Formats: sequence, structure tokens, C-alpha cells
Amino acid sequence: MGGERDVNHEPHSCDAALARAFGFLGKRWNGVILATLLIGPLGFAELKRSVGGICDSVLSERLHGLTEAGLVQRHVAEGPPVTVEYALTAAGQALLPVLEGLSAWATANLPA
Amino acid sequence: MGGERDVNHEPHSCDAALARAFGFLGKRWNGVILATLLIGPLGFAELKRSVGGICDSVLSERLHGLTEAGLVQRHVAEGPPVTVEYALTAAGQALLPVLEGLSAWATANLPA
Repeated sequence: MGGERDVNHEPHSCDAALARAFGFLGKRWNGVILATLLIGPLGFAELKRSVGGICDSVLSERLHGLTEAGLVQRHVAEGPPVTVEYALTAAGQALLPVLEGLSAWATANLPA
Repeated sequence: MGGERDVNHEPHSCDAALARAFGFLGKRWNGVILATLLIGPLGFAELKRSVGGICDSVLSERLHGLTEAGLVQRHVAEGPPVTVEYALTAAGQALLPVLEGLSAWATANLPA
């Protein structure tokens, strides 16, 4: 404290990226869905069970948004039976170290 | 793909911490306020200007929440003039590497 500081500093340019990240990951369920898929690809019903407490329509909507954003891919295996799985893209997988850091921080610093 | 995987896996215990982190940081403005204070302590008006687009009552409410959570400290310097500054606690500062990682990820993977 009391050191030199620029009181007129503007938000760094990284703040726009951070605001995007928080807007996106902070949207209810998105973060947990991505964290769940980090473990491996899952079908809709498995994903729903693993996430817990989410209804079909909301999970569908979030998967659509995550797919649009290029973080999740939908794989259809022609059957029979036809099976659909959701998997992280490389962009989604790149979140892993960030989520690990965030989880460690929350464990240490945000009371349960 | 096609490798071994446990379709019955339950969410890892870290998911509860992640859900807390997203619930907290995803609450509008909290992430940006913390990111702004990472640069250094600021008074209310400076902080408001740096965050941009936030009104007094919302900034007050968020600062109260962040203080309650132990991430921000309010310093009062007896004057005259009395000055009030907001600074990150050690817990708040521990977010820095996580926010940097998240910002880098968003820059690379979330279109502006």
C-alpha cells in the first residue's frame, strides 16, 4: 500500500475476455456440464445423471449452446441402435487446467 | 474414443467446488471487480470507473458480498479527508493465476 499506482488505469484488454468467460461459464450448468464431460464422452441420459438436478429441456438447450460455441461435439453412431454422444472439442478440453485451478482455489477459499 | 470408460461415474467431488466457483464468479460483475482489483487497491469511484457500466448500488452490493466472502478488504484511512479503499485479500489474490488462465482460454476459444 502507499506505493506507486496509476489511479487512471483502464481495465486491461484481458478483461473483455474474462467477462466473456464469466458470462459463459457462469451461465447456470455450463461449467458443470463441461467439467463432467472432461471425464469422457457421455450420452444424454448419462450426462443428465452425472450433472444431477438438470431437466431435459435445459440440458438440451445448454448442449446446443456449448456446441454452437465450439466447445462440445455431438457424435452420432449409426446403429442400430443409433447412439448419440457428447464430447469435448479441443477447445473444451483446453479448459481442463483452468477448471482444475479454479476448483483448487474454490476449495481453499470459498467455504462450502 | 472407444476406450474404457465408466458410464456410471458420479461427478467428482471437485465439481461441488467448481459449482461454487461458477456460482460466485459467474454472478454478474464479481469476476470483473476481482480482476480489476488484481491491479491494485482502488477507491469506490476509481473502481466504478475502471469496471465500467456498473451503478453505485450494484457495486456496493457486490463489494459487500466479496467482503463477506473474504476476498476483498475495505481499508479506511482516517483523514482528513477520510478515504476508503478496497483491496484483495490473500484469498482474492490467489485467484490471479486462475484468472490469467481463464482469460487466455477465453481469448483463444471464445469468439469476441
